[in-house]
Parts: sequence; structure tokens; C-alpha cells
Amino acid sequence: MVLLSGGLDSATALGIARAEGFETHALTVFYGQRHAAEIEAARTVAKMLGAAQHVELSLDLRRFGGSALTADFDVPKDRPADDMAHGIPITYVPARNSIFLAMALGWAEVLQAFDIFVGVNALDYSGYPDCRPEFIAAFESLANVATKAGVEGTGRFRIHAPLIDLSKAEIIKRGAALGVDYGVTSSCYDPDPESHAACGRCDSCQLRARGFAEASVPDPTRYSHGR
Amino acid sequence: MVLLSGGLDSATALGIARAEGFETHALTVFYGQRHAAEIEAARTVAKMLGAAQHVELSLDLRRFGGSALTADFDVPKDRPADDMAHGIPITYVPARNSIFLAMALGWAEVLQAFDIFVGVNALDYSGYPDCRPEFIAAFESLANVATKAGVEGTGRFRIHAPLIDLSKAEIIKRGAALGVDYGVTSSCYDPDPESHAACGRCDSCQLRARGFAEASVPDPTRYSHGR
Repeated sequence: MVLLSGGLDSATALGIARAEGFETHALTVFYGQRHAAEIEAARTVAKMLGAAQHVELSLDLRRFGGSALTADFDVPKDRPADDMAHGIPITYVPARNSIFLAMALGWAEVLQAFDIFVGVNALDYSGYPDCRPEFIAAFESLANVATKAGVEGTGRFRIHAPLIDLSKAEIIKRGAALGVDYGVTSSCYDPDPESHAACGRCDSCQLRARGFAEASVPDPTRYSHGR
Repeated sequence: MVLLSGGLDSATALGIARAEGFETHALTVFYGQRHAAEIEAARTVAKMLGAAQHVELSLDLRRFGGSALTADFDVPKDRPADDMAHGIPITYVPARNSIFLAMALGWAEVLQAFDIFVGVNALDYSGYPDCRPEFIAAFESLANVATKAGVEGTGRFRIHAPLIDLSKAEIIKRGAALGVDYGVTSSCYDPDPESHAACGRCDSCQLRARGFAEASVPDPTRYSHGR
């Protein structure tokens, strides 16, 4: 079971799950994010990386608000790297990874798939509470008391977060070695609504571009401003 | 924050939250359950018990299958009480309470509401893994590492499960004393699609009817077969 957003990290997580020999089932959630270009990217990635199944679900988190990704305040642009490294950015979506992992757990329990992969990363974005190892450990504990298999002892869920302590450059090197085509992934928080080209200026675009540069891997991203 | 299904237990949980002096925000999830009569019940209950806000969200768990409540296998009828007391019934929806609590956590974090009420009950239905005290404790731990408030120390989430060790009769007595009108709640797993009347024969109907009898409270439920 792989949570697949369509971004660079989750595509790499899917590539890693496959390389470890798993048959993969990918779950993508459309949660009302402004960067819905991700969904199309997720479809392409699932196909290219040979997922056995890909399910897309809708859940309108805009109803709660509270994040620049789902509500009507602006995505920050051109923030210096030092700012990004501190505090929890307004692009944080409250409890998003808890919600997504719980959904993945539900499907995983039906499939009896005990290995759940998620592309969270604690390094580049130390600010997101639900991208930290403590969070992953707490969710794994929950998974094993929340489910039939956990209670009956017929299986033990493991939450795999293979990127959690990698830098963006290391993630890109890893994925490139596994044949992940990053040209079809979408990381921008605020892509062009028509062309889906990346803005090149939000935190996510900046981190991604720097990752390619540091990894010395050509950046296949289409930018809207001819970056 | 109160998870409100429209059934007897969650209506009681809402009544208790109100009686404890909380301003209440109710969250109802339409998850593709066959007993969608619950949703209308939830609306009425939220209004009658004075919820400050009531949000309804859709999440199609039928896509995962795996439960008599969301897939196309039959809801068991006329099961003897002894059968109900053992094992996990096929009406169990994989990871449902994890998913719903995670959604409630998301909204609660936006509202800065640190008290989350859920009407789970471990006694009548010992079979559901996500209705046990261990589950509630594990989710509370998760909530406090998964969120901004938990990380920054600006608040501590508490998951309240005030019904967890009560019998159905005790729940009904408690709610009746708080003025909860059970006539508007819907507990049946397989209500009549048109009239929404309860079948009187599924596990949930049987437990509910027995609860009213044991509590010596008149049963206001509309049954389709003139039970």
C-alpha cells in the first residue's frame, strides 16, 4: 500500500516499494488542494511504475480550512531557505497525514497488505509535525490496535517511511537510480491552472529545484516562467 | 468536536459534551454506508442538541469494500445474543474509527478544539477493534504528535469516549436524563430505503431494543415490521 500524491517524494516511495519486491496498490486522495495537477501526475506515475491497482478518493478538506493549500490564502513565494527551515509553514494541512494514513490502513486491512509506504520526509521540511519519525511510530502503534489483524494477531502493520531522513538530493538520486521519471511528477503548490506548469517560486518548487541541482540530475520540471 | 453518526450512541456523546459545558461542533461522515438514513438523523440531532456547527463530509469507503455496511454482502439478521458477543462481525468497517477520528482531529486542529468526543462502546460489541480503550489511548497519543499544537506545546488533545464501558441500557438512561430524543436517532444497519424504518432484526436493532427494555425506557424506534 503506497500513498501516492503525484509529487516527487511519493513517486520515489512507490519506486522503492516496487524495488523491494512488493506488489503495489496506490492510493491518491483529492482533498481539495489547489494543486490538483497532482492527481493527473499520480495517475501517470502509478501506470509507469506498474502499480497493480490505483484508487483515487475525494475528501473535501476545504470544509475545514486552515491551510494555504486548501483555503483562500496565498501560497508563500520566494521565501529564503532559512525561513523555510524554521517553524510550521501555512501550507501545513491539519492532520492530513493522519487522515491519509488512516485511509490507507482501511484499504490495506481489506487487502491484507501489511506494508504501508509513505513518502514523508523530515529533513527538508522539519516544520510539518506529521512528517517526523515520532509520528510514524505513533501511527504504526495505532494501526496495530485499530485493526482486526492487529487484535487477532494475524498480521502486523508496518509503516515504511523510506525517505524520512534523506535530503531532497538523496531522494532524487535514489529515485533516478530506480528509473523514476520525475518529469511526470508534480510538486508545485500553485501550478498554472491551465498548463499545470510549476511556479518555480513556492517552497516546494524551490526545494525541488535545489534537490536536482545538488544531485547533479537534470531538472525535468516544466516551469511557467521559463525558470 | 463530536463525531456524530446519527445513531443512539453518538447522539448521547453529543448530549454529554453539551452537558459538560462545551460548545459543540459536530462532524458527520457519509462513507457510502447502506444505512444513509443516519445522515438525516444526524442533521436533526445536531439541531436539537444545539451544535454550534455541523459539517457533513463524503468519503466513499465502498471503494475499499470489506464490510457488510459498505459492500454487497448481506447484513446478518436475527443473530442470537451469544453470537454477537464473540468475534468481529462482518459489519466491521476496516479502520473506520481511525479515519473518522483523524478527520475530526483535522477540523479540531483548525478550530483549536482540544476535546474530541466519540460514542464508541466496548461492552455490547466487544468485537470491534476500534471501539476498545487501547484504541482510544493509541489515537490520543497519535493526536498529540501529529499536530502543530502537540509539537509546539500549545494544547493537548483529549479523546473522550464517555460511553466506552457503559451497557446500552446505561447509555439510554444517561441520554434520556440529558434530554436526548432517541426517536430521531437511527441505529439500524439495514433500514427500509423509503420509509427509513428500522428492520428490528440486525445486530444493531437487537442491541438497541434490548437496551430500551433493560433501561425501562419506552422504545421510540419506528420498526418496518411492526415489531
